[in-house]
Amino acid sequence: MKTSVAVVAQKIAARLAGDGSVEVESVSSIESAKPGDLVFAEDEAALVRALDSGGTAVIAGESAAANHAPKPLLIARFPKLAFARAARLLCPQRSFEPGIHSSAVIEDSARLGRHVAVEPGAVVGEKVVIGDRTRIGAGSVIGAEARIGSDCNITPNVTIYPGVRLGNRVIVHSGAVLGSDGFGYVRDPATGHYEKFPQIGGLEIGDDVEIGANTTVDRGALDLTSIGRGTKLDNLVHVGHNVRIGEDVVIAAQTGFSGSITVENGAVIGGQVGIGDHARIEQGVVLGSQCGVLPKKVVRGPGVVFWGTPARPLRQYLKELAVLARLGKKSGA
Amino acid sequence: MKTSVAVVAQKIAARLAGDGSVEVESVSSIESAKPGDLVFAEDEAALVRALDSGGTAVIAGESAAANHAPKPLLIARFPKLAFARAARLLCPQRSFEPGIHSSAVIEDSARLGRHVAVEPGAVVGEKVVIGDRTRIGAGSVIGAEARIGSDCNITPNVTIYPGVRLGNRVIVHSGAVLGSDGFGYVRDPATGHYEKFPQIGGLEIGDDVEIGANTTVDRGALDLTSIGRGTKLDNLVHVGHNVRIGEDVVIAAQTGFSGSITVENGAVIGGQVGIGDHARIEQGVVLGSQCGVLPKKVVRGPGVVFWGTPARPLRQYLKELAVLARLGKKSGA
Amino acid sequence: MKTSVAVVAQKIAARLAGDGSVEVESVSSIESAKPGDLVFAEDEAALVRALDSGGTAVIAGESAAANHAPKPLLIARFPKLAFARAARLLCPQRSFEPGIHSSAVIEDSARLGRHVAVEPGAVVGEKVVIGDRTRIGAGSVIGAEARIGSDCNITPNVTIYPGVRLGNRVIVHSGAVLGSDGFGYVRDPATGHYEKFPQIGGLEIGDDVEIGANTTVDRGALDLTSIGRGTKLDNLVHVGHNVRIGEDVVIAAQTGFSGSITVENGAVIGGQVGIGDHARIEQGVVLGSQCGVLPKKVVRGPGVVFWGTPARPLRQYLKELAVLARLGKKSGA
Repeated sequence: MKTSVAVVAQKIAARLAGDGSVEVESVSSIESAKPGDLVFAEDEAALVRALDSGGTAVIAGESAAANHAPKPLLIARFPKLAFARAARLLCPQRSFEPGIHSSAVIEDSARLGRHVAVEPGAVVGEKVVIGDRTRIGAGSVIGAEARIGSDCNITPNVTIYPGVRLGNRVIVHSGAVLGSDGFGYVRDPATGHYEKFPQIGGLEIGDDVEIGANTTVDRGALDLTSIGRGTKLDNLVHVGHNVRIGEDVVIAAQTGFSGSITVENGAVIGGQVGIGDHARIEQGVVLGSQCGVLPKKVVRGPGVVFWGTPARPLRQYLKELAVLARLGKKSGA
Repeated sequence: MKTSVAVVAQKIAARLAGDGSVEVESVSSIESAKPGDLVFAEDEAALVRALDSGGTAVIAGESAAANHAPKPLLIARFPKLAFARAARLLCPQRSFEPGIHSSAVIEDSARLGRHVAVEPGAVVGEKVVIGDRTRIGAGSVIGAEARIGSDCNITPNVTIYPGVRLGNRVIVHSGAVLGSDGFGYVRDPATGHYEKFPQIGGLEIGDDVEIGANTTVDRGALDLTSIGRGTKLDNLVHVGHNVRIGEDVVIAAQTGFSGSITVENGAVIGGQVGIGDHARIEQGVVLGSQCGVLPKKVVRGPGVVFWGTPARPLRQYLKELAVLARLGKKSGA
Repeated sequence: MKTSVAVVAQKIAARLAGDGSVEVESVSSIESAKPGDLVFAEDEAALVRALDSGGTAVIAGESAAANHAPKPLLIARFPKLAFARAARLLCPQRSFEPGIHSSAVIEDSARLGRHVAVEPGAVVGEKVVIGDRTRIGAGSVIGAEARIGSDCNITPNVTIYPGVRLGNRVIVHSGAVLGSDGFGYVRDPATGHYEKFPQIGGLEIGDDVEIGANTTVDRGALDLTSIGRGTKLDNLVHVGHNVRIGEDVVIAAQTGFSGSITVENGAVIGGQVGIGDHARIEQGVVLGSQCGVLPKKVVRGPGVVFWGTPARPLRQYLKELAVLARLGKKSGA
């Protein structure tokens, strides 16, 4: 919707420089910007391109304030963050119509809040509780006694096993599976066969969590698996039983957590990382992509980056790589 | 259900020490145990905590026999195995109601056994055969001419391609895809384009196999892909065309098998392992997490652990890591 | 269907040696061949086995021409390619019945071509456009305003997000998710919380692309994600936002692309490869399985093979591995 940059600036707490009556109606990258678009510039070089782009207004950092710009500027301390907020304002998420589609199957004992959408073919099991304004996408299956908070977006073809609990404003992308059985067996030495260890624990997911497409999160074996408020999981991530992930953790695609791992608040975990049973990733640690953390290992130090398998501090690992490269060259053809 | 520890002991072939009339009704971890719970202790330290816990009775190893315990003890040679069996007794899996939901779509030519459950929105194709007491979960799609044995649990949103065969007591978790086309193409040197090599073989899965959430198992190109009795696959595993996996193999999450690999009985394969075309993993081999096995490689030796890429015996690999760490340190800042 | 080898030879442009009136009706591996089967032999050794097999006729290379063979030979420059084409002739893909199943849910504003199949429980959203002879498999969900070309095979339980565009003859295997939100957040330094960066770009997939089971391809953040004509993705691959993949690229299972990567035409990418943000894989590069490409890295050279993490030319990496193995051995027990 068309909004004046003065209003946008005010809502995102940016300082306006230039004509506040100019209207924008969407956001864009600098490369694709056309009239009506708002763009953002992270640095000086981007600012030059942004001012030269087809866009109508530019969010920029403090250093841009001095410029006498040919377009209105919205000056913010963190331009990308301000841009994300402006985008939420100008491009509201595709809304879904509240209402229960006639092809959805909802058990009588389920309790649905107000303005809930249950799309075609979705299945809501016995005693499920769903909060206000939550969407259950087409083909999604919500197992008995699951509890889903308010303002959640359960996109199509998601599976939530019985008893799983989700907070408010949780987004779950298609194909994700929440609450499946953990991978636990006991080998019978007499026969060599594996018998299933009970996988009867729960799964609790906090407010504002986002779960990527085809990600799987197992329920606990006897106790809980949990994911804390504000944590974001990318696609195809695996979270094993009894894993405890803290708040504001980001986990890139295809990373796997085996069982009983603890991840503290604010950790940043790259893609294709593997973490062994009972490891502990302490607050604010950064794990580089493809690294491997051994079982029971404790990884320490806010802001310290680890890489390689077994994961070691980045500086150490880079030295090892350099030594190896040197020796490889010396070894001749 | 409430059961006396004497009855539990008898059914799991444990020896009772203490008051057999005490009743338990569930299982629990030591940490969460409350009255009515049965717990287990793997070792002396756990036994101390178990006896001190809120639980009612404890399964413990032979060494506990001498103790004069404040709670009834069920003495078993393998306490964790005994506990798994007790859990099956006390906490029966969530049962599903037999019956065909009115929203399920079942072709007339399909043949269903007795007490089969076909949940809402499930689709059962032409000439499919389903054994007694098997569940087809909500939203699952069973392709034409597939055969599924008895007592299987096909959870919601599973896809089984045409012609796939499953044994009895197979568990398939949500999002798993069984029998999709293998990844085979032939490049036309004249155009540089890839043409699809036929992917028309079968997929056979033995009794007592468990398949994790979002795992994919491709059908054979011309012949079979197969998974032997009792083998367990964790979540997000990929099994390519023409792979032959033996019996009682365990495969942790996110491991990938490319084509025409043989895995012999009793192998143990960690998470995020990658195995190249035509490799052979011999009986009882252990592959450490994230390791990589080269195409055509034969990995030998029951109980031998391999690690790294390319996978090598663990002792050798650890030496190499130690040498590298030493050289990295010497190389100074 | 039964076809004379003379007709097969003519249709696949092979030269016939032997009795052209002999009929074949299927294709097979050499090992499983039975009367009526056509097999192929890549080399001399395979030819010996093929002629000795139960099959009826053999596709072989030029060098086989001199043979006085006991079975009809179809001589082709590229026997495997000729076999793939013969297979398409003899074993047509399982066809699907055109028609809309009564349990499918199709918005009135959707526009479907001729001979389209919409299977049970499939959901087709508002203003979706679907080309002629395309199949929408059971349980698949096609989001609003998506456009799907002609002769596509969208197998069961696929999810296509709103606005995604697919070309013609695209195959999408079960569980694949196309157009989900990319993984982009901005951290608010004041709170430590992550805010969602807009993920409102598009996804375009060219003609003749095949997408494996449970693969995920995210939409662009502000601009496009795209996959070029003829490119093939195996199972469980992850493609992040704003990735541009060229034509005739093959990508094996479980490989992951983070954001804004460019892959040029004809690249060959192994399994479990990880590629960092903004990297560029140039034309014809080969990336070995499990290798890792650093963010912003440009990988150059048609036909050059890269391996290891960080990815380096294969020859260099093998030397490093050899040096390390030697040092490991010297270091004693």
